[in-house]
Amino acid sequence: MSLIDLINEPNDIKNIPEDKFRNLAKEIRRFLIRKVSNTGGHLASNLGAVELTMALHLFLTFPEDKLIFDVGHQSYTHKLLTGRKGGFDHLRQFGGMSGFPNKKESPCDPVITGHASTSISIADGIVKARDLKGENYKVVAVIGDGALSGGMAFEALNNAGRLKSNLIIVLNDNNMSISENVGGMATYLGKLRTNSKYTGLKMNIEEKLKNLPYMGEGIVRKIKTSKESIKSLFVPGMLFENMGITYIGPIDGHNIPLMLNAFEAAAQSKTPVLVHVVTKKGKGYAPAEHDPSYFHGVEPFDFNTGEKKAEKSSKTYTDIFSETVTGIGESSSNIVAVTAAMADGTGLKEWSKRFPERFFDVGIAEEHAVTFAAGMASAGLHPIVAIYSTFLQRSFDQLIHDVALNFLPVTICIDRAGIVGCDGETHQGIFDISYLSGIPGFAVMAPKNAYELADMLVFACSYNGPSAIRYPRAKAYYGCKTDTPIILGKSEVLHMGSKAAVIAVGKMVKVMAGILEELREEGIDLTFVNARFINPIDYDLIDSLCDTHEVIITAEENVKRGGFGEAVGLHILENGKNNKFVDISLPDSFLPHGNPRDIRDSIGFDPVSLKNKIKKSIDFT
Amino acid sequence: MSLIDLINEPNDIKNIPEDKFRNLAKEIRRFLIRKVSNTGGHLASNLGAVELTMALHLFLTFPEDKLIFDVGHQSYTHKLLTGRKGGFDHLRQFGGMSGFPNKKESPCDPVITGHASTSISIADGIVKARDLKGENYKVVAVIGDGALSGGMAFEALNNAGRLKSNLIIVLNDNNMSISENVGGMATYLGKLRTNSKYTGLKMNIEEKLKNLPYMGEGIVRKIKTSKESIKSLFVPGMLFENMGITYIGPIDGHNIPLMLNAFEAAAQSKTPVLVHVVTKKGKGYAPAEHDPSYFHGVEPFDFNTGEKKAEKSSKTYTDIFSETVTGIGESSSNIVAVTAAMADGTGLKEWSKRFPERFFDVGIAEEHAVTFAAGMASAGLHPIVAIYSTFLQRSFDQLIHDVALNFLPVTICIDRAGIVGCDGETHQGIFDISYLSGIPGFAVMAPKNAYELADMLVFACSYNGPSAIRYPRAKAYYGCKTDTPIILGKSEVLHMGSKAAVIAVGKMVKVMAGILEELREEGIDLTFVNARFINPIDYDLIDSLCDTHEVIITAEENVKRGGFGEAVGLHILENGKNNKFVDISLPDSFLPHGNPRDIRDSIGFDPVSLKNKIKKSIDFT
Repeated sequence: MSLIDLINEPNDIKNIPEDKFRNLAKEIRRFLIRKVSNTGGHLASNLGAVELTMALHLFLTFPEDKLIFDVGHQSYTHKLLTGRKGGFDHLRQFGGMSGFPNKKESPCDPVITGHASTSISIADGIVKARDLKGENYKVVAVIGDGALSGGMAFEALNNAGRLKSNLIIVLNDNNMSISENVGGMATYLGKLRTNSKYTGLKMNIEEKLKNLPYMGEGIVRKIKTSKESIKSLFVPGMLFENMGITYIGPIDGHNIPLMLNAFEAAAQSKTPVLVHVVTKKGKGYAPAEHDPSYFHGVEPFDFNTGEKKAEKSSKTYTDIFSETVTGIGESSSNIVAVTAAMADGTGLKEWSKRFPERFFDVGIAEEHAVTFAAGMASAGLHPIVAIYSTFLQRSFDQLIHDVALNFLPVTICIDRAGIVGCDGETHQGIFDISYLSGIPGFAVMAPKNAYELADMLVFACSYNGPSAIRYPRAKAYYGCKTDTPIILGKSEVLHMGSKAAVIAVGKMVKVMAGILEELREEGIDLTFVNARFINPIDYDLIDSLCDTHEVIITAEENVKRGGFGEAVGLHILENGKNNKFVDISLPDSFLPHGNPRDIRDSIGFDPVSLKNKIKKSIDFT
Repeated sequence: MSLIDLINEPNDIKNIPEDKFRNLAKEIRRFLIRKVSNTGGHLASNLGAVELTMALHLFLTFPEDKLIFDVGHQSYTHKLLTGRKGGFDHLRQFGGMSGFPNKKESPCDPVITGHASTSISIADGIVKARDLKGENYKVVAVIGDGALSGGMAFEALNNAGRLKSNLIIVLNDNNMSISENVGGMATYLGKLRTNSKYTGLKMNIEEKLKNLPYMGEGIVRKIKTSKESIKSLFVPGMLFENMGITYIGPIDGHNIPLMLNAFEAAAQSKTPVLVHVVTKKGKGYAPAEHDPSYFHGVEPFDFNTGEKKAEKSSKTYTDIFSETVTGIGESSSNIVAVTAAMADGTGLKEWSKRFPERFFDVGIAEEHAVTFAAGMASAGLHPIVAIYSTFLQRSFDQLIHDVALNFLPVTICIDRAGIVGCDGETHQGIFDISYLSGIPGFAVMAPKNAYELADMLVFACSYNGPSAIRYPRAKAYYGCKTDTPIILGKSEVLHMGSKAAVIAVGKMVKVMAGILEELREEGIDLTFVNARFINPIDYDLIDSLCDTHEVIITAEENVKRGGFGEAVGLHILENGKNNKFVDISLPDSFLPHGNPRDIRDSIGFDPVSLKNKIKKSIDFT
């Protein structure tokens, strides 16, 4: 019988003898690699956090104690140790287990998460609630060094120093965010990590004091050598201590007894303690150790080789973005590119190699990414900022206050717009049409196919104001090829039919092309329009369509509220047109994780349902 | 002739001899106090920054060099020194000079600003653009210690360390944000300030090195005394140095030659330098020194006494919020209150005195404020988060990801919703209906009068999910008193007439009450509905109104796009109703500063225009 078979309920790990920890860790790794090789998922970060999570589960009691994983994609071992082993067969699948912490799944997950840098804020809050209610349980936040670059984590650290109560913040330092880490904090952590004088466990201040006279002498002796030596010689973790947080570390994050000692020591403190744990991303699986960035979030792969099972057959929109933007960079030296720790995911990797001096990865810091771009634009450059739809929500005020109000030439390239699938409800890009089109002066576009994404990028880079292009996580569509130029605020009529006009936004052009083709074969010839611009909307065209069609239909993959259809509908109504109107959009609710097709089926957003909806709307009998 | 008369163009200050600096500063203070006593405006922070701004103007050349003030309310002396002296007679008035930096006003203002913690990001961007374009000018960001608690400033500092180019960050440390400063960073700065061993100018690392052996001995000697002594004895500014930024300071921010020396030294660096300058908020005007929080942003006052000219005649919505929430706090111990450096402005001051253990001022950190509240709510409390509409834009992702997705009982109290007036385009609260009502599951309300604000607060505090209440910066309305209870998603019919139904949101109830009364006197008796809920919308009522009225009119003080009217309009259209529809809302554009009445007049949003619009809509002749 394997050790993992003994783990069926929360806290079962406490029955495993200490000398078996190493074997259990090995089994967990094997289990995770096997399962994720079938389903896909986040792998490298989970492999790195196996011993850390085991140590936390030996230290804590569930569900009484509260453990908050930042982002949460590293919570697989936690799920396994809290009775969710069976869930891994359907990890991230529709109706199956989420790839992130989810309170609907288990009382051992205090909240649903998926975005970065929130864990310390949540933990600060839980500590306050615990103390005010006179309760008594442990609260631990686990945050990666990558997520620590997000400003919100700093805000929470800044406030944690005032808690005057126990809170344990585990800094899971693998020296990476999703790709390589950047910035002053990363450099600082690097120094802490590598300063051998202070490795091992510095459990409390008494121990520090004991060691310090030696340090003092060290300073006197080495003081004249270099600036670096000054910095590295001080008490490790001074940056955190300066903010009122006790620092313990750095500690080997694959040594369970050491970590347990540290956690037990930290639990004695009457104030927040940061335990700095050093782990190796991808640990225990050679392919993931070798390329942790690829194995951060991965499609199903071959267990033995780590190679992707299904070879990529055709280009994605991300690929088209990548190629086009690199081409634009060749000819336009005023174009610069900004990413927030997503050079790979957004397709800026190639750009970063070709134009390193015009490439800026600011780390997980979407707010800064946008305002930094505004700064560059104010001084004569044209920045392209590539951020996923869901993470751009972080920059909402910056888009308004720094970019739009100053009417600066910044182009936001929004990947993962619409239903993203397996990452689930925290990652769906289903709000961006709503929150972007309310911002005055933003030109917001969505391309119908690969060619148009390229054309829109060229247009945006020559447009002297704020612009955004939204495109899905999907294979690029090559149909509906046309050669009409992109003109600000102008839609494109793809086919002139009669009775009803369908105005489709972005990827919905492909969906509608299929449906309208079927309808044509049934003898129903509808007008077909590619919206192109979500803002400004081509109201002139809509007016003329209203005059010549009985029914107007809009289609977008965005929630209904604040969407394109809502604006078009209001325009029609206010202008006293009597057209019948159908708004095809997503329901005003969060959407679960799973294969996008399953999600669409579940909400009647599949082609068959949409076709029926359209047919019904033009059935005047 | 006074010295100030010699200042008419940018750089004129360079003609003033050094021995006259003190007199010029005195004249500038007198000028600012006189002018602001007439117009109102930000005073205390400007009085504190007079010498700092003078030193910067002696150091820089305008408009070539770029000076970015964080927030920007402390830019009055900068405006005065860049040829805008005459503008102070109409400061913050409609058509007059803005109270914030504005690039449309002067080439000496690189961007329009008004929100906190953006300056270093902007400066990082300008530095990068300068270097990539091979240009050569100085870039200086001036940020207060209050704004430094905003996470975005940390993100920018974290990235500044990588610039490998000159950037001067002036930390204008007056030991206050708007009210008192909070958090670990503030404590840290406090220690830097008061550590007399390291006051004066530490110009460069050589000088630091020279001094360090003494420090080293100091450490050895004092090491055993206390934990505090360890922290305070290290090189000042180590927290910044650890992030890769050279630290100079602390320096007396009222001593111009000292500051000039520091700036000149900083300009020699090949990397970013933080110059820590200590100033006194309100300096030189006894009433403002005495109560800098009150004199942060002030109404017109008596020059001699500092007393408010017009005594407050009646309660504002903020007052009603303050009283009600304090009352709720008496009876409900699970209610806690959170503010982001705005205890005074939001009306939480009284709460903070009555329930200090249930009061949390997190500093300028709106993101953390909301997620911290989510954390408390997840552990059994019901937090009230009071934030101005414009600043809540900072928390957009936190509202979605941390509060709504987790369906937590957090109540957001949104003061300054709608047109705010003199603070201008950066501060208008005209987007919140749009960005809040797209978030699934948020109950969003707007009260028609003082009583209803109180009722809604009580309702929200007993509602077990996310809720928000928006109310304006205005005197509370006491008309339209009713006693119908607040029910989730239900509107209130105030009067049943015929022909047209007017559905008004929040403060528009008062406006419409006046207009409909006039119309009644003219023999036109329209139906009048108080929307109460912006989300969920009372579609049942709207359906029945559509059946019995020819015209449906919605009224809200929010931009049109994504507003309440848009959603109502779409519903009417999609349901095939043939009602005429009028959406009374603000245009989809930024609105300038000025008296709200002037702003409304300029966009046809005044009662007379609105009445005519309504009359026209029901004129079927």
